Amino acid sequence: MAVLSEALTQILIPASALIGIGFALLQWLLVSKVKVSADYGKKDGYKDKLIEDEEEGAENADAVIKCAEIQNAISVGATSFLFTQYKYLGIFMVAFAVVIFLFLGSVKGFSTQSEPCTYNPGNLCKPALANAMFSTIAFLLGALTSVLSGFLGMKIATYANARTTLEARKGVGKAFITAFRSGAVMGFLLAANGLLVLYVTINLFKLYYGDDWEGLYESITGYGLGGSSMALFGRVGGGIYTKAADVGADLVGKVEKNIPEDDPRNPAVIADNVGDNVGDIAGMGSDLFGSYAESSCAALFVASISSFGITHDYSAMSYPLTISAMGIVICLITTLFATDLAEIRHVSEIEPSLKRQLLISTILMTAGIAVVSFLALPSEFTLFNFGTEKAVKNWHLFFCVSIGLWAGLAIGYITEYYTSNAYSPVQDVADSCRTGAATNVIFGLALGYKSVIIPIFAIAIAIYISFSLAAMYGVAVAALGMLSTIATGLAIDAYGPISDNAGGIAEMAGMSHKIRERTDALDAAGNTTAAIGKGFAIGSAALVSLALFGAFVSRAGIKTVDVLTPKVFIGLIVGAMLPYWFSAMTMKSVGSAALKMVEEVRRQFNTIPGLMEGRAKPDYANCVKISTDASLREMIPPGALVMLTPLIAGTLFGVETLAGVLAGSLVSGVQVAISASNTGGAWDNAKKYIEAGASEHAKSLGPKGSDSHKAAVIGDTIGDPLKDTSGPSLNILIKLMAVESLVFAPFFAAHGGLLFKLLRTFPDYPMEMWPPSCRL
Amino acid sequence: MAVLSEALTQILIPASALIGIGFALLQWLLVSKVKVSADYGKKDGYKDKLIEDEEEGAENADAVIKCAEIQNAISVGATSFLFTQYKYLGIFMVAFAVVIFLFLGSVKGFSTQSEPCTYNPGNLCKPALANAMFSTIAFLLGALTSVLSGFLGMKIATYANARTTLEARKGVGKAFITAFRSGAVMGFLLAANGLLVLYVTINLFKLYYGDDWEGLYESITGYGLGGSSMALFGRVGGGIYTKAADVGADLVGKVEKNIPEDDPRNPAVIADNVGDNVGDIAGMGSDLFGSYAESSCAALFVASISSFGITHDYSAMSYPLTISAMGIVICLITTLFATDLAEIRHVSEIEPSLKRQLLISTILMTAGIAVVSFLALPSEFTLFNFGTEKAVKNWHLFFCVSIGLWAGLAIGYITEYYTSNAYSPVQDVADSCRTGAATNVIFGLALGYKSVIIPIFAIAIAIYISFSLAAMYGVAVAALGMLSTIATGLAIDAYGPISDNAGGIAEMAGMSHKIRERTDALDAAGNTTAAIGKGFAIGSAALVSLALFGAFVSRAGIKTVDVLTPKVFIGLIVGAMLPYWFSAMTMKSVGSAALKMVEEVRRQFNTIPGLMEGRAKPDYANCVKISTDASLREMIPPGALVMLTPLIAGTLFGVETLAGVLAGSLVSGVQVAISASNTGGAWDNAKKYIEAGASEHAKSLGPKGSDSHKAAVIGDTIGDPLKDTSGPSLNILIKLMAVESLVFAPFFAAHGGLLFKLLRTFPDYPMEMWPPSCRL
Repeated sequence: MAVLSEALTQILIPASALIGIGFALLQWLLVSKVKVSADYGKKDGYKDKLIEDEEEGAENADAVIKCAEIQNAISVGATSFLFTQYKYLGIFMVAFAVVIFLFLGSVKGFSTQSEPCTYNPGNLCKPALANAMFSTIAFLLGALTSVLSGFLGMKIATYANARTTLEARKGVGKAFITAFRSGAVMGFLLAANGLLVLYVTINLFKLYYGDDWEGLYESITGYGLGGSSMALFGRVGGGIYTKAADVGADLVGKVEKNIPEDDPRNPAVIADNVGDNVGDIAGMGSDLFGSYAESSCAALFVASISSFGITHDYSAMSYPLTISAMGIVICLITTLFATDLAEIRHVSEIEPSLKRQLLISTILMTAGIAVVSFLALPSEFTLFNFGTEKAVKNWHLFFCVSIGLWAGLAIGYITEYYTSNAYSPVQDVADSCRTGAATNVIFGLALGYKSVIIPIFAIAIAIYISFSLAAMYGVAVAALGMLSTIATGLAIDAYGPISDNAGGIAEMAGMSHKIRERTDALDAAGNTTAAIGKGFAIGSAALVSLALFGAFVSRAGIKTVDVLTPKVFIGLIVGAMLPYWFSAMTMKSVGSAALKMVEEVRRQFNTIPGLMEGRAKPDYANCVKISTDASLREMIPPGALVMLTPLIAGTLFGVETLAGVLAGSLVSGVQVAISASNTGGAWDNAKKYIEAGASEHAKSLGPKGSDSHKAAVIGDTIGDPLKDTSGPSLNILIKLMAVESLVFAPFFAAHGGLLFKLLRTFPDYPMEMWPPSCRL
Repeated sequence: MAVLSEALTQILIPASALIGIGFALLQWLLVSKVKVSADYGKKDGYKDKLIEDEEEGAENADAVIKCAEIQNAISVGATSFLFTQYKYLGIFMVAFAVVIFLFLGSVKGFSTQSEPCTYNPGNLCKPALANAMFSTIAFLLGALTSVLSGFLGMKIATYANARTTLEARKGVGKAFITAFRSGAVMGFLLAANGLLVLYVTINLFKLYYGDDWEGLYESITGYGLGGSSMALFGRVGGGIYTKAADVGADLVGKVEKNIPEDDPRNPAVIADNVGDNVGDIAGMGSDLFGSYAESSCAALFVASISSFGITHDYSAMSYPLTISAMGIVICLITTLFATDLAEIRHVSEIEPSLKRQLLISTILMTAGIAVVSFLALPSEFTLFNFGTEKAVKNWHLFFCVSIGLWAGLAIGYITEYYTSNAYSPVQDVADSCRTGAATNVIFGLALGYKSVIIPIFAIAIAIYISFSLAAMYGVAVAALGMLSTIATGLAIDAYGPISDNAGGIAEMAGMSHKIRERTDALDAAGNTTAAIGKGFAIGSAALVSLALFGAFVSRAGIKTVDVLTPKVFIGLIVGAMLPYWFSAMTMKSVGSAALKMVEEVRRQFNTIPGLMEGRAKPDYANCVKISTDASLREMIPPGALVMLTPLIAGTLFGVETLAGVLAGSLVSGVQVAISASNTGGAWDNAKKYIEAGASEHAKSLGPKGSDSHKAAVIGDTIGDPLKDTSGPSLNILIKLMAVESLVFAPFFAAHGGLLFKLLRTFPDYPMEMWPPSCRL
């Protein structure tokens, strides 16, 4: 048995979740010390410090009032969009909850009789109807927590953006800390909240399930499904919203009217800034919460049929939760390095500081994993491995979790190399702008393709080692390892859009050039960290999906998924096609919505007298409405594609074909997602490289408005939907299909494959075995 | 036993090959009646007909002389490039032949002893050393035939281009027939030649092998490897050559200098036209020959271990060859519909006429397949199906071949829908140019992604039916079915670059606007047929690779390729990454070479006085040299990636991982290839749509030089490397890796997986079974 007792585990998990929440609230408090109100300049102690910088001091009171107004507009816009979106999501949630209940309830014909357990047939397990009900409840809880995660993130981001702008007047270091602390609020709230809800749910469900851990953890998988299905709509809807506004604003503002980004004269500028918060923040929050929930559920489900699951060793069983609990503590320590132990004095220190966060958290967490692995796990146990048993030692699991963690770091660093303008890949792309937009696009696409190579090898190595050591459980905890530092990951990730907004507010409030330069520097680092965050999200999604895929295969009772059978192979090739279908939908949606936005922006410039001269205000609300409508309308088809594919494939073609679909979409989707994200990130930073003009080479390409810069802007615009809509949505596609298959596995195993059952024309059996009426 | 006797089969196959060659020569003769020489206008009977069109007649003699000069320059350039390329390929061929011999010879330690057969262990088979030798010979023969196919295609294309231009003076119908007949020369020569060489080789090898059909057809697979490895370098090298020139010429000529395409003042114009012949013609010829050779070899290999293989039923065994022989006859009849039974009077009839070719050949061939299936096959037989036996009837095979054939037609028609500017997808892309290049690119990428959906379903259905009916043999003959009308497919495919060249020559020779309009119409149809041809090439490559994959798995002695084993899964995900790696290399190569070309073209415009005014001649040779050097240098890394991957994966990681790599690259590569080809084709035709201005909508976007048109040109330029370099090379990647794995399968089965054998740290066995020194 493990060293860690059940009672201690029961205390440690909720305790660290509560510590995480407390820490998040503390950071919020610190951020809130920056006052954004009309009477700011009069009473506040900060005034003295500002006086040293006369230029800024002079415009003080006016700028603060403007900032407050703009912040309020963005916050109201984002909140109103999310509430509108939640109405649709509410309908979907209820409808899908009914589907889950009906499908799973029908497995044993809605019988209320207890059944012999699947993996431990000597014991009696709870009836399928109970599993249906509790899966539905878990689904709803997961969905609500996911929505809450996104909403809280948006709230803190819109609370922090103007504060970052104001702090930028005092120096880049102050602004950085404000943005980073706000990111940390989101990171810790989300990680702690996810863990706490899951912990409480398990304990409540246990009141009913008692010793039936098989049924308990099978129902819990609904939590992952709820989390990711909300994330899908959050990412897709938010992504379409933000990029329709961004592309539309840029195409008229930057390209046609030659006014700067975020210029208040541009009617789409508020929609653009709202978009950053609903897409990059709320969408990303839901997404990573989904990954976290799914990898936990996959690990718990697989563990429930291991030897310590069968012997009801609670501490060992809770290993995935304990790892996450340890992660919160480690991230807390890591955060102090950025906020308290070091100070940023120069813009060049921002990116290294963020990168250092990743490295510190990874190193500390490795020790944390070792501690948890040796304390919480028995020294040896057996795992279920598709029909056979596999002997595993606790240090095997230490390797599994660590390899996931370090693979995440490797992916993060490689992503940085390919998307930061400090290195040659992005500089080459910038250089190719000399010969126009076409070569810029060709080089950018090539960069994205190339950036796939090392992350795939990192993922492959992590999979091979964890899979060999501890079968699908190993893969699931490797995914958890990659996500164990999620609080830090999210903090540096959320930092990006907050800085982006801060820059937008500085521009709109008409603050001085110096301040805009500081926020631009924060934003450039944010572009890279956003790409790193996407790299993490995709890498962890790949591991999570594989773990879920393994759990699905176990649950569906398949022994092998053999590519050499036609059923599996057609699933594989069609699955590999789905990311393309999905991307086609989302790209086209952004394109069409952007066209509408362009028309509206042009219309306003043409019909509102004095707008271009700054004498009249544009009609921001109309642009917000275009983005909102497009987002809500266009998120439905890609959402339906992802949600319906497993149901159709499983019901009509059966579990083998569905297994093929999952494997195909996984191995193909990862590539599309990574290349799309990195191509977009590289184009964005190539443009920023030319704009900043920090080196001789960069100066030779600039300045703003030069032909090279125009070519770079085109690349940036193309990259917008790639990196912020279709790319990051794809990781939800692969894991959502997998978790949905897992939840519905009992139904597919019992009633799936209708089409093949009906269509006995091309069976796998010789014709002599067919029913006589079917023989040719 | 089959109805068709062995003797009759032995006569019919070579007879139809010879008929095909005869028909090709006849077409050549007809094309050669158009005289291209300085004294053209004086003696030729055609003169009378030209008089009716005074405008053209006036410039007659001069234009002919110029055409002859330009044709000669293109032909000399193409021939000289190919010969330079062949020197490199010769070195590669010899080196790789040695590798094949050494690897395969080492399987049984270069022993000259006969061995018990693999599938029929009662009999004695020839020694592994003999198989090594004959595989090497087959490889060399395949390589030479492939090179010859490409070379002959290039020769006829450069012979026909100026003749098409000259015929355009007499009307669009005459020009069409000249271009189409020339395409037919290539199509028939290639199909007949491929069949004949294969037939002769089999019969010669049989003199040694006698009754050891297992060894015989195992050696024959070297023929497919030879064919495809040359095709790889042909496609990649040719693709880089042509697109470096094309992109470079366009970027300076069209975008900066605002001179028309193919303007003789552009220094890169000759390189561009040479490129069409070495890339689109020679590369495509080698590629489709490779597919043909591989699908035949895969079918023959699988058949050799079927029941009729073991009982040595020659007619049944030769079924794949008989199908191809029938295909030649059917295509011959089909061609008459285009050249003799109907006449083109108006440009709008060109595309329907080409599409009709596809439909006619498919309908006729379906009957042909029925005849061959019922005459050549026994009514029932058994096939080897990964360790089990499968009972198959002759009408099952009829379905298998037919489904491949009709899936090809479906892919062709869908490709046409997405790339022809007669339909809404391309028109939407053209419309998006209103808002600039960025939306054009976004819509174009979305179109490419979307165009993948139906072809993948078509391929999946074809695979499912043929796989279910006749296991891997079914898939192999389905691929053959898709390629059975290769003569017609290649004819309409080669027609495209010939028309493109004809247009270039018309422009360069300064012929009248009317003639240029006619050649443009021929060319626009050619763009679509080129996309259709690429669709066929990719669809057939998918089927061929799967068949080869199946043959490899059989030969390597694996019973299942289970995704749920770590070895296979890491192969799958890394395999899915390879198309991206490959595309990154080829795109970057084109980009870099194009940058060099741009610099050279700019330099010439800046330093040669009077060039822009047409008073001085540019230095064409320098541009040709840049393309040549770039092509030869840059084809090596992607070539090495494809050729080395199976060797490394098989030797170090073993056959299971290699099987995963093959499956992964297949299901992922197909998607990348289809979307890249169609995106590029759509951009090209969106640009042509705006230029032609044939509808109110098109007129509102034009004319040439408008902002929308400039945006369209950017899209077209980006599409160039996608559709002509990376896209079409990918189908070679997937099938070449598969055929290489098949050829080396005996070696991998015997000695593969070194790394896993050495690295026992993470074995599949419990630690107790490890050697003591390795235990942790």
